Amino acid sequence: MMSKVIVLRLGHRIKRDARITTHCGLVARAFGANEMVFSGEEDKGVIASLEKVAERWGGDFRVTYMHSWRKFIESFEGVKVHLTMYGLPVQRVIDEIRDLGRKKSILIVIGGEKVPGIIYKLVDYNVAITSQPHSEVAALAVFLHEYFRGKELELNFPGAKLKVVPQKCGKKVVKTEEVP
Amino acid sequence: MMSKVIVLRLGHRIKRDARITTHCGLVARAFGANEMVFSGEEDKGVIASLEKVAERWGGDFRVTYMHSWRKFIESFEGVKVHLTMYGLPVQRVIDEIRDLGRKKSILIVIGGEKVPGIIYKLVDYNVAITSQPHSEVAALAVFLHEYFRGKELELNFPGAKLKVVPQKCGKKVVKTEEVP
Repeated sequence: MMSKVIVLRLGHRIKRDARITTHCGLVARAFGANEMVFSGEEDKGVIASLEKVAERWGGDFRVTYMHSWRKFIESFEGVKVHLTMYGLPVQRVIDEIRDLGRKKSILIVIGGEKVPGIIYKLVDYNVAITSQPHSEVAALAVFLHEYFRGKELELNFPGAKLKVVPQKCGKKVVKTEEVP
Repeated sequence: MMSKVIVLRLGHRIKRDARITTHCGLVARAFGANEMVFSGEEDKGVIASLEKVAERWGGDFRVTYMHSWRKFIESFEGVKVHLTMYGLPVQRVIDEIRDLGRKKSILIVIGGEKVPGIIYKLVDYNVAITSQPHSEVAALAVFLHEYFRGKELELNFPGAKLKVVPQKCGKKVVKTEEVP
């Protein structure tokens, strides 16, 4: 049993980042994180759309807005990981982080284009998912995929109203009866 | 040695998808695909920003716009894979696809929210990266990561003008001299 995994998304801007931050939240949930917190601009649209997905598709994923990211990181009790192309290759540090995760909660910090320099110092690990520029959405997914060793692909989401039945061709979704 | 990997991004809309499609392209390049083709609305901004990254960070990744996605898929010679939450779990089919990739090129089709139903029939594999709703950016990254068995994390990009030197803390980028 692993401890809690929380994602902190920095520097959200309503106009520019709504979809990217939503994708980050969807990935966090689908790949087994327990919670996403975002800072930057408060955005009720992002929260609403992520809550709607969680309500339909199950699980107890939570998303909240947090004005003060610095306090949040500093007071977080657990292992703090920042995903950045400038950090150490994930393949070199993931075993160590996973081991720590057996006893401690993990905070995964992901930024947008401009991450304050202090972040690098506030965390325990700066981790690179390739040293190439790409996407915080992808970095988060691959990190969680490595962290959970692919077991997140088999996750079950309790309380789901909708469930996909995997098909070779086409779509099959079943509705689960709600328990009152 | 694996054959070519080409990503086809469907249904691009300039206003709504510019950043997501750019992230798809960046992920395609960073995780070892050779090329991205996109359909939907033609968008020179997306092409320019991806070409700029490839010029700076190396490799020979190409991105092009293609009006007729259907013809492109039908005439593609190789294995056609569509990433969709409704498909078969990646962990069940990836070994088979990887084996085929030793001899044949791979086309990875990714859509946005509304994928034409015919796509499911035009491809050889409908593949799910979890059966949960999340992100085409993440799906592409995890698919490529599984396809290349994590070896893409060690990729070298020839001709790079900039190179990251991984650091425990902070950023280190070296400039490579251009060869005339």
